[in-house]
Amino acid sequence: MKRSGRRPKNSSVLLDPQQPEIEAELKKSFDHRDSPLYNLLRYHLGWVDPKGNPVEADRGKALRPTLCLLACEAVGGRPWQALPAAAALELLHNFTLIHDDVQDEDLERRHRPTVWAIWGKPQAINAGDAMHTLAALTILKLGERGISTQKTLKAIQILEESCLRVIEGQYLDLSFEYKLDTRVEAYLEMVERKTASLFEAAVWIGALLGTEDERLIAGLRGYGRELGLAFQIRDDILGIWGGEEKTGKRAASDIRRRKKTLPVVYALERSERLRQLYQKEELQAKEVSLAVEILEHSGSQDFAQQLAQEHCHRALAELAGLPLVTQAKERLEALASFSTQREF
Amino acid sequence: MKRSGRRPKNSSVLLDPQQPEIEAELKKSFDHRDSPLYNLLRYHLGWVDPKGNPVEADRGKALRPTLCLLACEAVGGRPWQALPAAAALELLHNFTLIHDDVQDEDLERRHRPTVWAIWGKPQAINAGDAMHTLAALTILKLGERGISTQKTLKAIQILEESCLRVIEGQYLDLSFEYKLDTRVEAYLEMVERKTASLFEAAVWIGALLGTEDERLIAGLRGYGRELGLAFQIRDDILGIWGGEEKTGKRAASDIRRRKKTLPVVYALERSERLRQLYQKEELQAKEVSLAVEILEHSGSQDFAQQLAQEHCHRALAELAGLPLVTQAKERLEALASFSTQREF
Repeated sequence: MKRSGRRPKNSSVLLDPQQPEIEAELKKSFDHRDSPLYNLLRYHLGWVDPKGNPVEADRGKALRPTLCLLACEAVGGRPWQALPAAAALELLHNFTLIHDDVQDEDLERRHRPTVWAIWGKPQAINAGDAMHTLAALTILKLGERGISTQKTLKAIQILEESCLRVIEGQYLDLSFEYKLDTRVEAYLEMVERKTASLFEAAVWIGALLGTEDERLIAGLRGYGRELGLAFQIRDDILGIWGGEEKTGKRAASDIRRRKKTLPVVYALERSERLRQLYQKEELQAKEVSLAVEILEHSGSQDFAQQLAQEHCHRALAELAGLPLVTQAKERLEALASFSTQREF
Repeated sequence: MKRSGRRPKNSSVLLDPQQPEIEAELKKSFDHRDSPLYNLLRYHLGWVDPKGNPVEADRGKALRPTLCLLACEAVGGRPWQALPAAAALELLHNFTLIHDDVQDEDLERRHRPTVWAIWGKPQAINAGDAMHTLAALTILKLGERGISTQKTLKAIQILEESCLRVIEGQYLDLSFEYKLDTRVEAYLEMVERKTASLFEAAVWIGALLGTEDERLIAGLRGYGRELGLAFQIRDDILGIWGGEEKTGKRAASDIRRRKKTLPVVYALERSERLRQLYQKEELQAKEVSLAVEILEHSGSQDFAQQLAQEHCHRALAELAGLPLVTQAKERLEALASFSTQREF
């Protein structure tokens, strides 16, 4: 089957502009934190090697903080004021990644060994817990940027409520491992919590900090939710058919662990053979190839890609009628397209 | 060696009065939370069995919320206003317990199987993460009790900063597992973070919500810190010599896992034989008995108990000169004595 997407030329242009500011804000969260524990966090964020020496490693796409700043700008706010929230979103996301890697026993992320693969699971749990706590402490700094105490409290609430949704989603995702009869609807409910809720929170907080206009805020929230769904479905496709050198994860790694991602859920509904394969504890290399073959023949990639595009269109539709600052709006639109076409 | 403590008659009197209110506030944190994930949390808190049916199980001492409410009352505040903070402290503490049990692979807590022992480690990590998030959301409710947004933000900051200290302490505690040369000073630094910081936060937040008087707040913080140290050292003693039926943990469980608790750290400095024993990965029943014997002959129990009492006296000294509401002050004093004499 032909790959339906290709890497868009402007992906770095889309994500880069705010990166140095986001990173500077992230680094401020670590000021005066001198326990060696924080080296595990700095390592995960791509700033240092396992011994604590500075490196230039893959730092991830920083998509959630970028969305937060763009939403703030789009509604006429000053993104500079939203930076602590943007950094908090990135910390929160990375907390979930550290714990996900422990839970899934993933050995690699962003082309490097995961935190638990180096320091063991107990300390990786601590690293994730510390990252979560730093997120809460970082968003508290909104006050230093002239944000009212009222709005700061509201931003914390949105962040932590979405955090609960993410954890509920992760709970569902793990519970699917023992089920062969997960339906597409159940999958979408899981993804709405696990991924879409934090995307929604990112634009929600950004918009909240920049405007009082409830209509703008509601529209951007809808955009964030749909974008999150599109992004995750594309992630599922890359988890099976993505190139290792781009994604930083082993090819077909989701198959190996029998993850109930969308293409798999779709194909399981249609193939008795795949259901048999997925009854095993773990799949061997040959079985992984066979599973990928079944997935391809079932049309699951096309189905997933079409669904991703549908959510992308809905995201764009949410933006369409809103009176937003043009440049920021265009970048939000471009991010929606990127989310369904990306190769990494 | 004779046990130096006995169960004080008034322990339940000390802890009970606020319990129903604290529990009601805790339960409110779960209102409208309908994911099955929350059953793991309710189970851990002693409200339901693994299937979700209501039970009356051991709910823990609720010491931190009690301290928070007492501190608020002692400075002339209204404890009713501090209830969301008290509940948040208990949730935060229980988040650390759920993750500790995963990290230490402890099979029992409060006379029942631990969360991970029933649902597995990945879901127990989720349960702890959700409990942590609920703590943050619960303390946000201070506004509903007439607490200013300013003070609410300050309370969140104190809570999350102390949370970071607790995690740093847990990091140190785990890192001690691979060391035989931990000194008493290093142990105390670890315990100051792992336990004392949350005790300090409990009385700090309680006092902050009840007064503007910085001297009262500072005195109570000192009391909380010292109480926390006394409490943890007594905990270490019970971890070796405590009766299983009272502590809810297997006797000598800390020895079995070669935990570097105070009596062990003290004895390791003095016994080559113990150092040899502790070089092993895990101790067998016979070796556990031998280790306990060495610990008893080294005078480590007396040393630890004396140190606990010293911190208890310092806690009392912090309170001595402060103009506090008499009844609350007396209960704070009684709690300090309880912390070094308790059998559970």
